[in-house]
Amino acid sequence: MSELWSPFVKNLVPYVPGEQPKLTNLVKLNTNENPYGPSPRALDAIRAAATDDLRLYPDPNGQALKDAVARYYGIQSDQVFVGNGSDEVLAHIFLGLFGHGRPVLFPDISYSFYPVYCGLYDIAFETPALDEDFQIVPEDYLRPNGGIIFPNPNAPTGSALALDAIERIVAGNPTSVVVVDEAYVDFGAESAVALIERHANLVVTQTLSKSRSLAGLRVGLAMGQAPLMEALERIKNSFNSYPLDRLALAGATAAFEDRAYFDETCRQVVESREALVGQLLERGFEVLPSAANFIFARHVQKGGAVLAAGLREHGVIVRHFSRPERIADFLRITIGTPVQNQALIKALDTL
Amino acid sequence: MSELWSPFVKNLVPYVPGEQPKLTNLVKLNTNENPYGPSPRALDAIRAAATDDLRLYPDPNGQALKDAVARYYGIQSDQVFVGNGSDEVLAHIFLGLFGHGRPVLFPDISYSFYPVYCGLYDIAFETPALDEDFQIVPEDYLRPNGGIIFPNPNAPTGSALALDAIERIVAGNPTSVVVVDEAYVDFGAESAVALIERHANLVVTQTLSKSRSLAGLRVGLAMGQAPLMEALERIKNSFNSYPLDRLALAGATAAFEDRAYFDETCRQVVESREALVGQLLERGFEVLPSAANFIFARHVQKGGAVLAAGLREHGVIVRHFSRPERIADFLRITIGTPVQNQALIKALDTL
Repeated sequence: MSELWSPFVKNLVPYVPGEQPKLTNLVKLNTNENPYGPSPRALDAIRAAATDDLRLYPDPNGQALKDAVARYYGIQSDQVFVGNGSDEVLAHIFLGLFGHGRPVLFPDISYSFYPVYCGLYDIAFETPALDEDFQIVPEDYLRPNGGIIFPNPNAPTGSALALDAIERIVAGNPTSVVVVDEAYVDFGAESAVALIERHANLVVTQTLSKSRSLAGLRVGLAMGQAPLMEALERIKNSFNSYPLDRLALAGATAAFEDRAYFDETCRQVVESREALVGQLLERGFEVLPSAANFIFARHVQKGGAVLAAGLREHGVIVRHFSRPERIADFLRITIGTPVQNQALIKALDTL
Repeated sequence: MSELWSPFVKNLVPYVPGEQPKLTNLVKLNTNENPYGPSPRALDAIRAAATDDLRLYPDPNGQALKDAVARYYGIQSDQVFVGNGSDEVLAHIFLGLFGHGRPVLFPDISYSFYPVYCGLYDIAFETPALDEDFQIVPEDYLRPNGGIIFPNPNAPTGSALALDAIERIVAGNPTSVVVVDEAYVDFGAESAVALIERHANLVVTQTLSKSRSLAGLRVGLAMGQAPLMEALERIKNSFNSYPLDRLALAGATAAFEDRAYFDETCRQVVESREALVGQLLERGFEVLPSAANFIFARHVQKGGAVLAAGLREHGVIVRHFSRPERIADFLRITIGTPVQNQALIKALDTL
C-alpha cells in the first residue's frame, strides 16, 4: 500500500485465477484447459510467423482472424471483434456496453470475474439466484437492467440453457445488451450465434482457451451485429491499438481453419466426460449435468475442501470455491485425458 | 451507431495508429519500427515455446520476464510490471494512478494516445506548451496536478530531457505519480530507472517494440517502487489475468538476455540516424535534435503534407501530423537501414 494509491485502487478486489503450479508432474484439472494440444496447423502457423517480421506491428484490426471466424460461423467479418483473451473482450464490454445508471444482471453463481469488472468500472450489479437445481431462471432477467451477462454453459456449474430460453431473455430486453459468454459452448451446448441476425442487442463471446486448446495464446472474441462490434472497436482503439500479436493472430486463424482436429478433440473430451461422470456417480458423487469440459460435483458425505486438499496430496489439482457457501461442498473438475481421469479416480478411492 | 451505444461510447475519440500497409514493397518509415529483426535468441525461444504446452495458461505473473528485466537494470523483480504492449501498461496507469480530481499534465505536443486515455477514463488534463525550440519546460510541471506523463525522448519531436531536469519534476511532485515514457530511450537518452530508488512517485515505462525489434509481439513494461507496481497488478488482475501469452513471455525474456545483439542494433540505428540527419540538413531541412529512432524535420520551403504525399508516390511512407498546426510542416521519419534511408533521400531529391 502507498500514499499514492487512490481510494479506487485500495478498494479493488481483483480476480483470483486458478493456480498455475510450477511442478510439472501434477495432474492439473483445475483451470479447464484442454487435455489435448492445439491443432498442428496452428503450431505450424506460429512457427512460420516467428521471423524477422516480428519487428513490425501486427494488423491492428486482426482482419485474417475475423475473416476465419466469420467463415466458420457463416456471419460477416464486421460482426466479429477479437481481443487478448475473452477476459479482455469482456472488460471492454463492461466498460462500453454496460451500466448507464442501471444494475447489470448476472447469476449469483457464475464466472467470478463479472463482479470484478463491475468494481473496476464502478458499475452496479444484481445477481438473481440460480434455482435449487443450480439452473438459471430466465424470467429473473426480465426486469429493468443496464445489461445482462451469463455463461452458457454456466461456470462453474457446467449447466447449459436451451436456445429458446436464451432468446426469451434477449427478446425481453431490447434496450439493453445481453451477453452470452460461450467459453465452454463447444463441449455440448448450442451457440447463440444463430440468434445474432434477429437481435441487435445480442453479443456472444468465445475464447480459444478451451475447445481450441490455446489458453497459452490469449485469444478471445465477440460476435454480434456490426454496430455493437463497432462500439467495442472504439473502446479497443482507445485502450490498445494492437491487442493481438502476430503469433497469436497466425495461430488463432489456423486453429479456426482446422475444423477436423477441433471436432475430433471436442468429441474425445465429451466422451471422457461421460465416462468420468459414470465413475463419480458410482462413488457417491452428485454431478450436475455438464455441457462443458468440466464437471461440478459433490460427494454425499465428504466435504469439498477436504476432498480438494486430499486430492492435492495425491498430486491431483481440482478447483474448489469456499464461497458462496451453497457450493462449498462442490469440486470443479476439468476433464483430462483418460489417463488423467483415472489418476483422479484412483486418488479419490484412497480418500 | 446504435441506440444501444451509451453517450460515453459516442463521445470517444479513439487513437489512430500509423498505417500498416498491405503492400510489401514500400519503404515503411512511418511507425518507428526497428529496421533490424529481433534477437535470434528471441526467435529461437518463441519457436521452442510453440508446442502442445500452448494448451496451458501462461504464468499470469510473467515472473521469468520480470526477473530478466530486473537483472538487466539491477533492480528488484517486484519493481517491474509487464503488459500487452506499453499502450496497455499506460492505460492501466491512467486508470489506476492518475486523476483523483486534479488534471493530469502532459506536453501539448506529445504521444497522441495520452488524451485518448483521458477520454476513456474521464480524466481531466492540461497540456503545457513545448517552448519555441519544441522542448519540454520542466518548471511548467511544478503546479498542482493529478499525475504527470511525458515521453523521454519526446514523441514526435525526438528530443530528450536531461536526467537532472526529470528529477526536478519528480522531486517537485511528491504527492502525484510522475511517469517517464521511455519508448525510445535506448537510442540516445538516459533512463530514469536510475532514479527509482530515490523517488517513490516515479514510474518508468518501456516497450519492446522499438529498440528490441518486437513490435509484432506486444510487450511493454513499467518500473518503479514496489507499492506502485502492486497498484498496477491490482488493476491488471481486475482486467485480464493473463495479458502476455506464452510466446510473448518466452521471446521477450530472451530478448532482454541478449545484450550484445541489442547493443549492436541500437548502435547501427544511431549511426544511420546521424548520417541521415546530415543528408537532410544539406537538402534544406531543419531537423530537431533526436535521441530516438526517428527524426522530426521540416523543409525550409516545402510543406509537410505535400512532401509526405510526394514520398508516398515514390513508395516511401513517413508520418505526417496535420495537427496541431505548429507541427504541420514537419515529417516524422523512422530511421531505416542505410538502404532504406537512401531510398528516402533519392525520393526527396525528385520532389
